[in-house]
Amino acid sequence: METIEVQLGERSYPIHIGAGLLADRRLLEQAAGSGQLLIVSNETVAPLYLRKLQSALIDALIEGGFRRDARIVALGGGVVGDLAGFAAACYQRGIDFVQIPTTLLAQVDSSVGGKTAVNHPKAKNMIGAFHQPIAVISDTDTLRTLPPREFGAGLAEVIKYGLLADKEFFHWLEEHIDSLLALDTAALEFAILRSCRIKAAIVAEDEREQGRRALLNLGHTFGHALEAVGGYERWLHGEAVAIGLMLAAATSRRLGRLDEASYARIRALLERAGLPSRAPGTAPGDVLEHMRLDKKARRGGLTLVLLEGIGNAVTAAAPDERLLEEVLAAELDDRSAA
Amino acid sequence: METIEVQLGERSYPIHIGAGLLADRRLLEQAAGSGQLLIVSNETVAPLYLRKLQSALIDALIEGGFRRDARIVALGGGVVGDLAGFAAACYQRGIDFVQIPTTLLAQVDSSVGGKTAVNHPKAKNMIGAFHQPIAVISDTDTLRTLPPREFGAGLAEVIKYGLLADKEFFHWLEEHIDSLLALDTAALEFAILRSCRIKAAIVAEDEREQGRRALLNLGHTFGHALEAVGGYERWLHGEAVAIGLMLAAATSRRLGRLDEASYARIRALLERAGLPSRAPGTAPGDVLEHMRLDKKARRGGLTLVLLEGIGNAVTAAAPDERLLEEVLAAELDDRSAA
Repeated sequence: METIEVQLGERSYPIHIGAGLLADRRLLEQAAGSGQLLIVSNETVAPLYLRKLQSALIDALIEGGFRRDARIVALGGGVVGDLAGFAAACYQRGIDFVQIPTTLLAQVDSSVGGKTAVNHPKAKNMIGAFHQPIAVISDTDTLRTLPPREFGAGLAEVIKYGLLADKEFFHWLEEHIDSLLALDTAALEFAILRSCRIKAAIVAEDEREQGRRALLNLGHTFGHALEAVGGYERWLHGEAVAIGLMLAAATSRRLGRLDEASYARIRALLERAGLPSRAPGTAPGDVLEHMRLDKKARRGGLTLVLLEGIGNAVTAAAPDERLLEEVLAAELDDRSAA
Repeated sequence: METIEVQLGERSYPIHIGAGLLADRRLLEQAAGSGQLLIVSNETVAPLYLRKLQSALIDALIEGGFRRDARIVALGGGVVGDLAGFAAACYQRGIDFVQIPTTLLAQVDSSVGGKTAVNHPKAKNMIGAFHQPIAVISDTDTLRTLPPREFGAGLAEVIKYGLLADKEFFHWLEEHIDSLLALDTAALEFAILRSCRIKAAIVAEDEREQGRRALLNLGHTFGHALEAVGGYERWLHGEAVAIGLMLAAATSRRLGRLDEASYARIRALLERAGLPSRAPGTAPGDVLEHMRLDKKARRGGLTLVLLEGIGNAVTAAAPDERLLEEVLAAELDDRSAA
């Protein structure tokens, strides 16, 4: 087991990563505490029912007579963590909660950093709170039963960390992607640990996303637009992010910030990870329209996270639309294959 | 205008108190900022509709395309402040809000300290968040149109501050209660300022109510039980607190912590303020039953805030029920008048 600490002053907390942690009685007893406990878990929840579930969760806390010193454990993927975390943030103005993420995406991304949310039917991530867990327990064994497509979607975020902040890690990923896909325990532990370290360091610097934390959005502006264009059905979040990473890389290359060889390495790694790096049949105009909505939602215009090389992301004002349209036209479909 | 600062590090904010502040264009422009603005106000809202209103408020923010740098202004009493503050806490994980409290209760209590809430039909203050405003503007002129009964209810909290932490202020209240009831501007400004100073100092020490902030509950354990026994109809919150202050004083006297003369001064001041200090016809057993529920809700048993003299409140484990029952039997009805 490896443990890292997210440094947030009095809100600091440990992330434990390793195989078999859910069988580690001492660790679980510590996480559970000695008081009242509500464990939140689920199969799959349709986004439309999330708000109802949120209400039901808080009703359950009230009707169960849960006290302020009660604790909530979120056992599941990102949606469970978001929902349980938000309930913990709002119940009696904030009670303790523990994250036990069981998907790769949740282990490397949503369980770290204290963002909680309940999705509104009309908008993602608009309702939520910052509420840090008191501990995160990531058991790599839970990934053995994860559908391969979901595992891959998590890998997109892992690759993102290498790309944005750690070229050595990116290189490690190039060398170990097959071990990861084969669910090699040591490789999984290393990749999750390194991802969490990068995220934790950025969150410690900028808990409330007023500066550097925006770098974590590498690939996400394009990714969110692709998710929306696909009606939130065609792509898993991580898949849309993978294509988004490629679009960010292509934009960076077009602007002369990223060299050709790095661009090719990024596509090659995404492809070896079994991730899409293009979105055949998607009209550039549709993607741009969603990006325009995103721009409208921000004061001071749209910014993109671009690459100045592998391992070095920067935020920059989005280039003009014509350039973006050219990039999209060149990247979304694989014209060399047509 | 007087201004005090609530000292909470990077969450510090000013409270402006004075007559005519709502006509002070510069102050209001500063509070409004230069971005998107949502002003929340209301007449009276039935508690059952609060959750719906909360949802509607957040829908309005989403549909109006409000950004993360938007600001919410709560103009009204405590319910408006709680509701708007909670929406501000949850929208995009926290946006700025300004409190413009227009009742005495909100000016001296709920607008200070960052507690926000939306009442659940089955429980008060169970859903909420800590979210500090960026500024509070208390215009004493708004109290001129407040129904006298509501003004009186606010006075109960003002008297509470003198009782719990400031015997000089209690003495000042004894000398100026008539000026306050006559809505004398200077007296109002002084009383609100002093009350906010006491609350701000306690909140600065203990923002999340883990210790000293509990002293602000003087009179409230009894008060909440009385509100519940009265079906939330017989008493305004401040009225129930006034009776609760008297019950806390009587319990303290019964335990030898408070002398007879202080006890008599407290009752005299409450009566001169036009507040109830007894609850005729209320059965002691009913009050005890609600206090038992309160006890169940807390780990480690029920604590009461008691008085070691005027201006000196302490928390203590609740005395045994027989003693409480005797106090209630002696205090709720005025047997000397029977």
